[in-house]
Amino acid sequence: MQRYFIDENYQPTVHLTDENYHHIVRVMRMKNGQEIFVVFADEMAIKAEITDITEESVIVTEIEKETFQRELPIHITIASGFPKGEKLELIAQKATELGAFNFFVFPAETSVVKWDQKKQGKKVARLNKIIQEAAEQSHRQHLPRLESISPKELVNHFSDFDAVLIAYEESAKQGEQAQLVQTFQQLTAGQKLLVIFGPEGGLTPKEIENYQLAGAKLAGLGPRILRTETAPLYLLSVASFYYELSSSTAH
Amino acid sequence: MQRYFIDENYQPTVHLTDENYHHIVRVMRMKNGQEIFVVFADEMAIKAEITDITEESVIVTEIEKETFQRELPIHITIASGFPKGEKLELIAQKATELGAFNFFVFPAETSVVKWDQKKQGKKVARLNKIIQEAAEQSHRQHLPRLESISPKELVNHFSDFDAVLIAYEESAKQGEQAQLVQTFQQLTAGQKLLVIFGPEGGLTPKEIENYQLAGAKLAGLGPRILRTETAPLYLLSVASFYYELSSSTAH
Repeated sequence: MQRYFIDENYQPTVHLTDENYHHIVRVMRMKNGQEIFVVFADEMAIKAEITDITEESVIVTEIEKETFQRELPIHITIASGFPKGEKLELIAQKATELGAFNFFVFPAETSVVKWDQKKQGKKVARLNKIIQEAAEQSHRQHLPRLESISPKELVNHFSDFDAVLIAYEESAKQGEQAQLVQTFQQLTAGQKLLVIFGPEGGLTPKEIENYQLAGAKLAGLGPRILRTETAPLYLLSVASFYYELSSSTAH
Repeated sequence: MQRYFIDENYQPTVHLTDENYHHIVRVMRMKNGQEIFVVFADEMAIKAEITDITEESVIVTEIEKETFQRELPIHITIASGFPKGEKLELIAQKATELGAFNFFVFPAETSVVKWDQKKQGKKVARLNKIIQEAAEQSHRQHLPRLESISPKELVNHFSDFDAVLIAYEESAKQGEQAQLVQTFQQLTAGQKLLVIFGPEGGLTPKEIENYQLAGAKLAGLGPRILRTETAPLYLLSVASFYYELSSSTAH
C-alpha cells in the first residue's frame, strides 16, 4: 500500500495536496474507497481511506492507527564528508532503510568533490527525493532530511546531540572496540547520536582533533576496513541490533 | 599496499604466477624490493618483499606475518535468491567487506531473473572478481567464493552448517526478535552459519516450509522492511558487533 508523508501533525481527516495529490490522482489513478498510509510530521501514522477527490486535494479519513513501532529508539544522524561518484545516493537510500534519523553532508578536507552553490541545491533535492522513496518503501514513520553544511556548522551542531562519535578507520587498525558499546549503553530512548564519517581519503588528524576538542569520541567499527559508504550501514545495523533485537536478552 | 590471494598454503617464500604475476609486473610495474601482502589458502597472511622477477613468476619473501585478526569468528555464508538488476554485485561487494565467508546464489520461486547455463558461468566469474577486489580492499584473510546452485542443492548443503537461518520479512512484521540473538548465543568460534535471503518478491510459504523441515529457523532482522540487498549487510554487521565489539562487555 502506498505511503505518503505530510508536513502537518496528526489529524483523523487529512487533505493531501501538491506532489502527494499528483501522485495519488495522476500516477496511481486512485479512486474513492482505496486505502493509503499517511505519515504525519509528529511521526503518527494511519491507514486511511480516500473519501473525496477534488480539483486540488485528496481527502482521506483514518481507518486505524499504525501501532507497530518502526523507528529506532535513539535518533541517529549520519554526517558524511562528500564522497566521490554515486556513493551519497547509496548512503541516503540504504541508511534510510536502516533507520537513520537525519543526514548532514559536508566538504571534508580530503573530499575530492567540491559542490558549488548551484550544484548543491539540485544535489540536495535529489538526495532528499531518494530518501523519501526509501522511507516509503521501508515503511518509516519519520521522514529523514538531508542538509548540506559547512565543517564549521557541523561542529556547531554538536550541542544538539547527546553524543557525537567519529567513525575512525585507524581505530579499527588499532583495535579500538569499546567506544561504540559504551555509547550505546549511555544513550536511552529519545536521545540523539551524531556519527561522522570521512570520505574515501578519511579524516585528517586536524579534523579529528577539532571534533575531539568539541566533544566527539573516536569509535572503531570492527576489524575490517569498511568503505565510506559501508560504514554508516554497519553503524545503523548494529544500533538496531542493540536497541531492538538484543534488549530482551543481553541488556 | 597491494594484496594478493593465492591458492597454496603458507610458505615463507612464494612464487606468484598468472593473474597475480600480470597484475604485479604489467599493471603495477613493481620492482625488486617493493612490498606486497600475500594471503594463503589457509588464511595466513604475510607482508613480503619482491626478491626476484622472472619471465613467469614473481618471487617474494616474508618480512613478517600479519597478526591482526580480521576474520569474523563464525563463518557466515550468505544464500541469496536471484534478485533483479545489479543487486548481486552490491551484495557481493559489500558483504565481502563486512566479513561474509562464502556465497550461494539460487533461483528462488519468485526470482524474476532466470540464469541460463551460458549466462551463469560468466555471471559467477564476474561476481567472484568483484568479491576478490573487495577482499583485497578490506584486507580480508579469507577469500570468499560464490557458487550458483539449485534450490535442492541449497537444502542438501544445510548439513554442512551448525545453524541455518531464514531472513524472513514476515518475521519483522510479526515482531520476531529473539531468534538471531539465540543463534549467536549458541554458535562459538569456528562454527558455520548459513543465512538464506529471498529475492524482491520474498520466499514463498512452500520454500519456507521446505527449509524449516530441513532444520532452518525464521529470524527477524528488526522492525523495518529491508530490501533484499540490504538484509545481508544488516546480518553481517550485527554478527561483527556481537562477536567482535560487544563480547568484552555484554557476553
